[in-house]
Amino acid sequence: MSLHDLMRQLQVRNNSKIVLVVADGLGGLPLAPGGKTELETAQTPNLDALATRGVLGSSTPVIPGITPGSGPGHLGLFGYDPLEFRIGRGVLEALGIDFDLGPNDVAIRGNFCTIDDKGIITDRRAGRIASEIGAKLCEKLAKIKIPGVECFVRPVKEYRLVIVFRGEGLGGNVEDTDPQKTGVPPLDPVARDAASKKTADIAREFLKQAREVLKDDHPANFFTMRGIDKRPQIPTFEEVYGLRAGAIAVYPMYRGLARLVSMKVLDAGQTLADQCARLEKTWNDFDFFFLHYKYTDSTGEDGNFAAKVERIEQLDAAIPKITALKPDVLMVTGDHSTPSKMKSHSWHPVPVLLAADMCRTDPCTSFGEAECLKGGLGQFQAKYLMSLAMAHAGRLEKYGA
Amino acid sequence: MSLHDLMRQLQVRNNSKIVLVVADGLGGLPLAPGGKTELETAQTPNLDALATRGVLGSSTPVIPGITPGSGPGHLGLFGYDPLEFRIGRGVLEALGIDFDLGPNDVAIRGNFCTIDDKGIITDRRAGRIASEIGAKLCEKLAKIKIPGVECFVRPVKEYRLVIVFRGEGLGGNVEDTDPQKTGVPPLDPVARDAASKKTADIAREFLKQAREVLKDDHPANFFTMRGIDKRPQIPTFEEVYGLRAGAIAVYPMYRGLARLVSMKVLDAGQTLADQCARLEKTWNDFDFFFLHYKYTDSTGEDGNFAAKVERIEQLDAAIPKITALKPDVLMVTGDHSTPSKMKSHSWHPVPVLLAADMCRTDPCTSFGEAECLKGGLGQFQAKYLMSLAMAHAGRLEKYGA
Repeated sequence: MSLHDLMRQLQVRNNSKIVLVVADGLGGLPLAPGGKTELETAQTPNLDALATRGVLGSSTPVIPGITPGSGPGHLGLFGYDPLEFRIGRGVLEALGIDFDLGPNDVAIRGNFCTIDDKGIITDRRAGRIASEIGAKLCEKLAKIKIPGVECFVRPVKEYRLVIVFRGEGLGGNVEDTDPQKTGVPPLDPVARDAASKKTADIAREFLKQAREVLKDDHPANFFTMRGIDKRPQIPTFEEVYGLRAGAIAVYPMYRGLARLVSMKVLDAGQTLADQCARLEKTWNDFDFFFLHYKYTDSTGEDGNFAAKVERIEQLDAAIPKITALKPDVLMVTGDHSTPSKMKSHSWHPVPVLLAADMCRTDPCTSFGEAECLKGGLGQFQAKYLMSLAMAHAGRLEKYGA
Repeated sequence: MSLHDLMRQLQVRNNSKIVLVVADGLGGLPLAPGGKTELETAQTPNLDALATRGVLGSSTPVIPGITPGSGPGHLGLFGYDPLEFRIGRGVLEALGIDFDLGPNDVAIRGNFCTIDDKGIITDRRAGRIASEIGAKLCEKLAKIKIPGVECFVRPVKEYRLVIVFRGEGLGGNVEDTDPQKTGVPPLDPVARDAASKKTADIAREFLKQAREVLKDDHPANFFTMRGIDKRPQIPTFEEVYGLRAGAIAVYPMYRGLARLVSMKVLDAGQTLADQCARLEKTWNDFDFFFLHYKYTDSTGEDGNFAAKVERIEQLDAAIPKITALKPDVLMVTGDHSTPSKMKSHSWHPVPVLLAADMCRTDPCTSFGEAECLKGGLGQFQAKYLMSLAMAHAGRLEKYGA
């Protein structure tokens, strides 16, 4: 029996509240061997108090050694096996700009690029044009018409854009046109299966017209396509868990990921204080809250150890606003590690904290990577976090008699 | 390759003896955060000595967060993935009264209930009639004849009974007739597949006759059917592991579970002393012994922390009788946790102790949940306990060259 079928079979509804706080890229590394990680360096009295009365562990986002992107990282936390449910880059980019993808949509991540008069790519990012320029070029591209299909073109940031084709019978299995290097022309959008041939033809026609439309817009006089895909068919969070789920995320990508599993996306404002206020205001409307905190990841990506420490301390300071609501299950974790030493996502296990009345307390008294190794949850795959949450919330019946 | 195929391929026979002591519901919770569990509170000098010379760990009965019933809990310990091998409620109930289910049998859990003159259920448990009354009503029901099928009716306890239909071509996939609420009539036993249509017809006919037979036996003037199922097809313990296995369990349910995997069920007497005596007497007849101790679970279910502690101490006192036989591998664990704080089975990991000459000792010197977190076996799925036992008994060859 699959994990989801088991959840469907065993879930019961009650009045419990579950809060999942995702501090993006929470896990880290010490700068020197034997040193402390960002989380261990930070002063986190509130998280430490939770660690004392709760239970710790380490989660593996996918399998050992695999560094996840934001998509797989979050799907795992939501209890969707990230090796089973895959999200194309184009879909993720569309989700990231709050584009509401439908079942007949094919999403494409576009990169404005520079081509010379022979059609050879000379700059894969068109000199990193300003976002305003990218936005204007998207307006021009949006005028392209192709019979039988609706085309949407949306700017993302700088040289990045999203193209969506909406229509019947569009498969999502088409090769990138980005050759991943300069000095060569863009590739042809080749269908990898028969069901995607129509999509490839449309992409080819769109690119043909785009070349004409953009020809005078040097350095952004063309664009490449990547991650051409449809949104995956994903069972809804409520159907699997019986939880009415609200997502409180400032950044579009995470709102998009929540929407992918059919969580209700709430107005999160701009700050953690706004998010906590939203949590309080909507407390009675949902059973489960996903609260996303971005800055532990972005400071890690910047390689700024001290800034990541500070961001963790800011998160810690907000914890009392959450505990004041008395959630039955409060979890604090990350979707992956982003060690500032690496300036990137990593494969390292992610610290997990779960506080609930019925958790089996362990000897841990502070929240940090080394302490999590001693935790009662042990090391486990992130996809099991939701079954643990459901259990601690009294929302799962016994399996078998 | 499946776990069982691996066992089949690698197993070798030798003269080693393996003893698995299952203290039902062994795992617990501290009454207050930071306190000790039942097992940690108990004085267990003999188990602690084993822990010192053995290796500890924590087992997950099914997957994280899942609370198993006795069936899945034991199947896991016996090395049968509890998500792959499932046992219906009727089958478990039949096993629990020592009914020897054959391959052509469909077992049904029955509940005597009260219906009014319109056939509406007014009490789903017939006022919890005394067991003697239930037994007499079962005798009446046992006289029902249906052409082409043998019907067995057996009392369980109070309002509970077991019905078994024996015959060719009986599928086990039929809906419950228990509507799970009062104020409505019992449901029709509907076949969920074509192979179960005959079973449904027989159930319908049986119920029709039963209504007549019981009509004057208010409050137990009818009964409902639940968990209609056949015994699952389970490879035998000896075929998978090459072990001649004997089960020494006082309670019928656990004898039934042992019988399900074709262990030889031995006379266990009534007490732990009887069980140990049986173990000694049959020591030369088997390679593997499953010794089941019920009271750690029943005291947990009663919410009686002190009584569970006492029962653990009684088990500890019996350990020298087992070690005196010098088993090559001695394991002490539970099929799940039953924290007295929760008065129920739970999902928490279960303490595991394995003592054998070739175990890699760890720093653990006492048997308890927190200590098990530091144990050399780590946290692992219960279904791997048997491969660990086989290895420590020198009964597994190298995999591959």
